[in-house]
Amino acid sequence: MSNEKEKIENEGGVGLVSPQIFKYPHKFSMVHGYLDHFQLCYETYGTLNKNKSNAILICHALTGDHHVAGVHSKDKRKGWWDHAVGPGKAIDTSEFFVICSNCLGACQGSTGPTSINPGTGEAYGMSFPELTIKDMVRAQKHLLDFLAVNSLYSVVGGSMGGMQALQWIIEYPSFVERAIIIAATAQHSAQTIAFNEVGRTSIMGDPKWNNGGYDQKFRPEMGLAVARMMAHITYLSDESMSERFGRNQRDVQNVVGELTDEGKTKFEVESYLHHQGLKFVDRFDANTYIKLTKALDRFDLVGKDKLDSNLKNVQSKVMVIGFTSDWLYTPEQNKKIAESLQRMGKNASYLEINHKDGHDSFLLKSHRFLRLLNLFLVGASQEELSRQKVRKYRQAITRSEMKKESDLKVIGNWVNKNEKVLDLGCGRGILLQHLRQAKDVIGLGVDYDTDKASACISRGVSVLQGDIRDALSMLPDNSFDWVVFSRMVEELDQPCQIIKDALRVGKRVAVSFVNHGYWKNRMHFLKYGSRITNDVYRQDWQNSHPLNHLSVKEFESFCRSLSKDENSFRIGRKIFHRGDWKTNCCFLPNSRAGLAIYELVRDST
Amino acid sequence: MSNEKEKIENEGGVGLVSPQIFKYPHKFSMVHGYLDHFQLCYETYGTLNKNKSNAILICHALTGDHHVAGVHSKDKRKGWWDHAVGPGKAIDTSEFFVICSNCLGACQGSTGPTSINPGTGEAYGMSFPELTIKDMVRAQKHLLDFLAVNSLYSVVGGSMGGMQALQWIIEYPSFVERAIIIAATAQHSAQTIAFNEVGRTSIMGDPKWNNGGYDQKFRPEMGLAVARMMAHITYLSDESMSERFGRNQRDVQNVVGELTDEGKTKFEVESYLHHQGLKFVDRFDANTYIKLTKALDRFDLVGKDKLDSNLKNVQSKVMVIGFTSDWLYTPEQNKKIAESLQRMGKNASYLEINHKDGHDSFLLKSHRFLRLLNLFLVGASQEELSRQKVRKYRQAITRSEMKKESDLKVIGNWVNKNEKVLDLGCGRGILLQHLRQAKDVIGLGVDYDTDKASACISRGVSVLQGDIRDALSMLPDNSFDWVVFSRMVEELDQPCQIIKDALRVGKRVAVSFVNHGYWKNRMHFLKYGSRITNDVYRQDWQNSHPLNHLSVKEFESFCRSLSKDENSFRIGRKIFHRGDWKTNCCFLPNSRAGLAIYELVRDST
Repeated sequence: MSNEKEKIENEGGVGLVSPQIFKYPHKFSMVHGYLDHFQLCYETYGTLNKNKSNAILICHALTGDHHVAGVHSKDKRKGWWDHAVGPGKAIDTSEFFVICSNCLGACQGSTGPTSINPGTGEAYGMSFPELTIKDMVRAQKHLLDFLAVNSLYSVVGGSMGGMQALQWIIEYPSFVERAIIIAATAQHSAQTIAFNEVGRTSIMGDPKWNNGGYDQKFRPEMGLAVARMMAHITYLSDESMSERFGRNQRDVQNVVGELTDEGKTKFEVESYLHHQGLKFVDRFDANTYIKLTKALDRFDLVGKDKLDSNLKNVQSKVMVIGFTSDWLYTPEQNKKIAESLQRMGKNASYLEINHKDGHDSFLLKSHRFLRLLNLFLVGASQEELSRQKVRKYRQAITRSEMKKESDLKVIGNWVNKNEKVLDLGCGRGILLQHLRQAKDVIGLGVDYDTDKASACISRGVSVLQGDIRDALSMLPDNSFDWVVFSRMVEELDQPCQIIKDALRVGKRVAVSFVNHGYWKNRMHFLKYGSRITNDVYRQDWQNSHPLNHLSVKEFESFCRSLSKDENSFRIGRKIFHRGDWKTNCCFLPNSRAGLAIYELVRDST
Repeated sequence: MSNEKEKIENEGGVGLVSPQIFKYPHKFSMVHGYLDHFQLCYETYGTLNKNKSNAILICHALTGDHHVAGVHSKDKRKGWWDHAVGPGKAIDTSEFFVICSNCLGACQGSTGPTSINPGTGEAYGMSFPELTIKDMVRAQKHLLDFLAVNSLYSVVGGSMGGMQALQWIIEYPSFVERAIIIAATAQHSAQTIAFNEVGRTSIMGDPKWNNGGYDQKFRPEMGLAVARMMAHITYLSDESMSERFGRNQRDVQNVVGELTDEGKTKFEVESYLHHQGLKFVDRFDANTYIKLTKALDRFDLVGKDKLDSNLKNVQSKVMVIGFTSDWLYTPEQNKKIAESLQRMGKNASYLEINHKDGHDSFLLKSHRFLRLLNLFLVGASQEELSRQKVRKYRQAITRSEMKKESDLKVIGNWVNKNEKVLDLGCGRGILLQHLRQAKDVIGLGVDYDTDKASACISRGVSVLQGDIRDALSMLPDNSFDWVVFSRMVEELDQPCQIIKDALRVGKRVAVSFVNHGYWKNRMHFLKYGSRITNDVYRQDWQNSHPLNHLSVKEFESFCRSLSKDENSFRIGRKIFHRGDWKTNCCFLPNSRAGLAIYELVRDST
């Protein structure tokens, strides 16, 4: 019966698992101090293949542990990421060998403040060396060596785990092929330090803390519970708390520090927090909490604008994921990691997932998020890509659909082997995928749409999800051979400034646009005094969104005025497609061209 | 010397002030329980005029007090809003009689948990009745009665003070002419309750708290300090903390719970918080903190969608102000108060000030904010308005400037006496001010721009700062006689849906737009294949923002298709101005009209 129950509890999962212990018997030097020896408690799922090319290391968050997936053989507890890790799941254990260890300094079986200091025969307590994320990563490396893992297919981590993943690709650049950094930061901000300090002060202000020398039977539970309650608020969002608890009240049960409205009820959110606080003190140690939060606060790869140089040796392909409602490690903080990697010419993507559950979103079942992990790790299957293709052609019933890629062909021809291409408004990454396959181009796409950015990831195309103006402004001068605007300049507000910036970042800029001066548009407007609607201009007024149409004439006049002011570029090649967008035309392009494609060349090129 | 120094300390301010005591000697019934009698500590500045029409009540925030302005005669302490209140300041004490009392239940001289319970001869402590915002307001009313103030020119409050101001206009609708509600909420959300509960748990978990029965010499300072430190984080923004402290470190001095990085330094933000915590326990009482935060958590005018009905008797003119970086009482929460008032047909405005300092922005010197307070209280001076006018005409050098108000004249003529008008994209409120003066119209403007919204306030025009789509969608059916779109439909994304919504909210809709089908535009486009630039279409392509141009023909065709689908409205009057925007034209308007103005009439009208 009990066996039957266990099976059901983890049906389709990795099943029963037992933690193991790795002992490192030598002296271990840390950033601040050393340990005579240490141990890590860890679990693995799946099997290391013959090439040893399928190992994935998962790094846990502040209060997490090594038990990622399956159910524990002892207490039947499910792993904290069981929905993400298992056979056929986002991190597929039938394909990958997955490892997770309780981090160094923690209290779930690895050496930390609760461990016995061999020098004194007593628990380290507050005498445990001051800890850093780097120490955790170095200790994990010893575990991987012991497991005979000589490269990582990927390292994956959220929150503090994301910081470890980031530290991994800095510390062991050639060891890690890929990294997924989720809801993390390259630097603990003043606000996050402040929250941690309040938690620490609460613990240290608890008289039972006793300068860290508390007895295990007489621990500073009150101080730790308050620290946890406060921290828990920062893991959720205002919206998710409102949805979950609102202002609902409930009868009071036994909770820490009872205080009730007219003696009878308590807000549900209050009871929930007390429950979280109580649960936490059962499984966590106060000194460990102090040491680990200090390690977080110390984490700073930015310092005085040195994030870029800290990332200069990275070789891994990186995906950073932020959540819109995460106010602890904000989307902006996550994005900065990918931006810095891009500035250093690395292969990095940033994706932002619209999820309402705050920082903890990464722990919850979100189809979009889990799918993204899987796409980054293994890409879309051939089946799936061909299915997409079939569907695409079936839908391609209008002429404009058929012609969709006509400008991409031209631009694709202009680009040379091994060049670097920035595609602004890259959509699903068709051009960049083609260029990578055909010309070994290194590409970066920018698009504000999550679905499109995810499609880029499924094609193996690097993408920064967000505003193209922001992306351009953070990139250094001269960092791309090409900047491409494929039929999206019409959507730009004050395009002049953006194109100028593109000419700073790229040696060449390709601009394609629908020529609004096409003779049929003019004739229609003259005759009817209204916009033409056809397969290019699809919507009538009431269903349109504002656009900034332009013609060949206007674009050339803009180029003339800009190059006169700036004296910095010239128009290179130009291609005009006739109204059918297939045949080229040369004469009277402002009247005869349906589509125009320009190459702008910076003079210094 | 000392006198000299005092003068300098408050030069241009209200000078030396002394708190006074008001004793209410009767039984005072509260929402939960009663007091045998109570006292309030208060200060006043300025003089009550003969008509008793110039009294302004200021309500303070959670840990604030009655000392708003000037310097204390005893300890030389400056008032917490000294930069806002004084002769010639935003709340001008040479014009107004300003009153502020320490609120009931607080610990700066008013009756609260630290006061002696006459029944027992000991301090109330936790036996002080459970407190509500309503009790505070009712106690303040007794003070005003005592001061012979029989109406309030305005009530003003931020944070908890804003909640009191809101309660005032509900409790005493005919007593309060105006209310300024700043950085407040109509309902404590789950997240704010959660933060307060962590603070309370910290206090009650301090062994010295002793179920509230602590001796004044042996108080739960540690618990209270932690509560304050945490709360202080919620008063600031991540940005302001980063700017102020970043990750700077400093040498450690004596602080609560010392913990240093390698024993020497501490982050500045940590020291700052400890300092705040220590300073706070000197001046505040732990039980009071518990009682007051519970009063905040209880505050709920929304309940099950009953905010509108709670506000049904309001007669005051209300301005609600939110700050962009306030994540404790968010801009959205503030806006909801004004929206609800508008739904109930009240005179209410919402303005959002872009300020980086989080919730505490309202306590800081911000010119834009202080100016807004003054504008709402006294309007712009005649001088100033006429100066504005002169400047306007001087600048009006282009024809388009001269013609700026031509459509407003037409729409102004259509509107009847005493009608209600919603002006979407209202700019500086010119139309609504004119209609109020000429036709006693009740108007509401909507504009996303802070400066324009402030200009509306200076004209006495109610305004909701924000998105017009949001404003429309929250307003009830049939709540305005007119909805006006004055030359802004070109900026709308998918205008169909918005105009449909306008026809739900308004009985009549007025739409004016520049006719893109005007013959000169057509001829130019035919001849040159580029957009025309003139005094109407000012920018060439590279400097434009996207627009959704339309012509008379397109608008009429849209109306035909919409009225066929919806069968709910007809085109009423229409006026076409010729190219000069002055002379009317009737024939061939799609070719000949420069400006078109339509009246759409709902069929049920």
